[in-house]
Amino acid sequence: MATLKVPPHPPSPTEDSEQLRKAFKGWGTNEALIISILGHRNAVQRKLIREAYNVTYGEDLLKDLDKELSSDFERVVLLWILDPAERDAYLANEATKKMTSDNWVILEIASTRSSLDLLKAKQAYQIRFKKSLEEDVAYHTSGDIRKLLVPLVSTFRYEGEEVNMTLAKSEAKVLHGKISGKTYNDEDLIRILTTRSRAQLSATLNHYKDEFGNAINKDLKTDPKDAYLKLLRAAIKCLTFPEKYFAKVLRLAINKLGTDECALTRVVATRAEVDLQRVGEEYQRRNSVPLDRAIANDTSGDYKSFLLALAGHEK
Amino acid sequence: MATLKVPPHPPSPTEDSEQLRKAFKGWGTNEALIISILGHRNAVQRKLIREAYNVTYGEDLLKDLDKELSSDFERVVLLWILDPAERDAYLANEATKKMTSDNWVILEIASTRSSLDLLKAKQAYQIRFKKSLEEDVAYHTSGDIRKLLVPLVSTFRYEGEEVNMTLAKSEAKVLHGKISGKTYNDEDLIRILTTRSRAQLSATLNHYKDEFGNAINKDLKTDPKDAYLKLLRAAIKCLTFPEKYFAKVLRLAINKLGTDECALTRVVATRAEVDLQRVGEEYQRRNSVPLDRAIANDTSGDYKSFLLALAGHEK
Repeated sequence: MATLKVPPHPPSPTEDSEQLRKAFKGWGTNEALIISILGHRNAVQRKLIREAYNVTYGEDLLKDLDKELSSDFERVVLLWILDPAERDAYLANEATKKMTSDNWVILEIASTRSSLDLLKAKQAYQIRFKKSLEEDVAYHTSGDIRKLLVPLVSTFRYEGEEVNMTLAKSEAKVLHGKISGKTYNDEDLIRILTTRSRAQLSATLNHYKDEFGNAINKDLKTDPKDAYLKLLRAAIKCLTFPEKYFAKVLRLAINKLGTDECALTRVVATRAEVDLQRVGEEYQRRNSVPLDRAIANDTSGDYKSFLLALAGHEK
Repeated sequence: MATLKVPPHPPSPTEDSEQLRKAFKGWGTNEALIISILGHRNAVQRKLIREAYNVTYGEDLLKDLDKELSSDFERVVLLWILDPAERDAYLANEATKKMTSDNWVILEIASTRSSLDLLKAKQAYQIRFKKSLEEDVAYHTSGDIRKLLVPLVSTFRYEGEEVNMTLAKSEAKVLHGKISGKTYNDEDLIRILTTRSRAQLSATLNHYKDEFGNAINKDLKTDPKDAYLKLLRAAIKCLTFPEKYFAKVLRLAINKLGTDECALTRVVATRAEVDLQRVGEEYQRRNSVPLDRAIANDTSGDYKSFLLALAGHEK
């Protein structure tokens, strides 16, 4: 469930774009006005506002926001205003670049989006960067991490609920065999995780637990610091329980000395219209603090106000 | 260019479906009538005919054709009448099954279709078989062949014409290094072939030839009988010169003792609306015989008539 709150009768996109223009004019920027508008419009509405702004003023709203805002507040507003597919394309591209490389972001986008949303992100990637996400991920990774990430971003996964129990049992056995033998980069293990539907994979992992005693991620924790194993466990969590995965990313971001704004911004901006409500529930279950209070305690100013607006929590 | 010839003012789908119904009725089937209709309708028209047939008679045209026709003629008509995406899904599924497994068909579909057509085939596959093409290909292959085929069917390749010459040079060098070292299953080699756009790959392979003297496929022919190397060379040909690849498949099918109807049917049915004209030119260039004459010499009866209709050559 989304946390974003949209008024029942919002102003027209033209009115919104006029208000935004006003917020930029005069002495200093009116951040509160920007937050009150953009923090309460869904993806379709934001797109229409961008279009209305462009028609009325002949300028790109994104560029004007870029000029007016700064630091963390700027980043969250700019990410938020993008269409979800464009935003994923932008984040994924950033994550394949040398200076900002981040395999976690690639893993997260590849494993938590629906097949259609991942496809749209790949199309947006091609339109914007004139190359494919697959080639960039393959080029910028290597070794076991490449073996895992490339099929994760490539597969157009089946999304039906059908489960083949015979297959689930036989593949649970395959997984257990490989993990017992510590061949974590085995190609069958990677094949199962990267190509099976979420429903089929869940059946396989449930059978794994029933039959062999441990949750698979427990068996994959032999070396807690190994980067490949960390990604492997995260992929499994993303595919089978994404809300719990996101709650953990938020926990690590917030508990970090000095807050990881990059991760906090990403999760709030990408999930506010999807499942941030459920993510918040998982967060509270694990941390005994409501997510919005944790965010409020760890951030400040306009950045804080905007995150809280997206998280559905008004002052 | 297509070879299919559609009349400028074809009968309505309802009229066509009535004529087809007539062809099934009475003493024996009127194959000539079936050929004169279905051999001259494009994908959209065939779809409308199937729909009209279903509305008028409450039956599936495919099933009625299946009852009325037999052997090679039946197979070519049934494959032809399918929507291209459904047809690719059907062929690919057949190719992943134990008894009819055929890595060449998977390779061909993965490497000669546009990104969008491959995606549509994958969607049709999921609708019909309730699982993904990727998982079936990954499950039914192993070793080096899996390493090649899975990314080939998975990648949503960029199709723009932009070429990065610096990258082409550096990747040509990578390819040459791996091939010189005989590590044909190297992951960088496979990455380059399976993720780069056709334009980029062509630039890389042209540079390879300029810089190192041989066409890459010549250097990959060290062991002409090795199944993986054969597929690797075929993938390169499919990606860079599909018409030539199809002309070769036809040549092998026709020259074979006893004709390979399966391959002949597949290439004619899948390319008649796409590039069979160009394939025929390549065929004649290599064999000094027009393709339609070669087909006519090697086939007979209704099967022959239907293939020739699709190849644009009437009696």
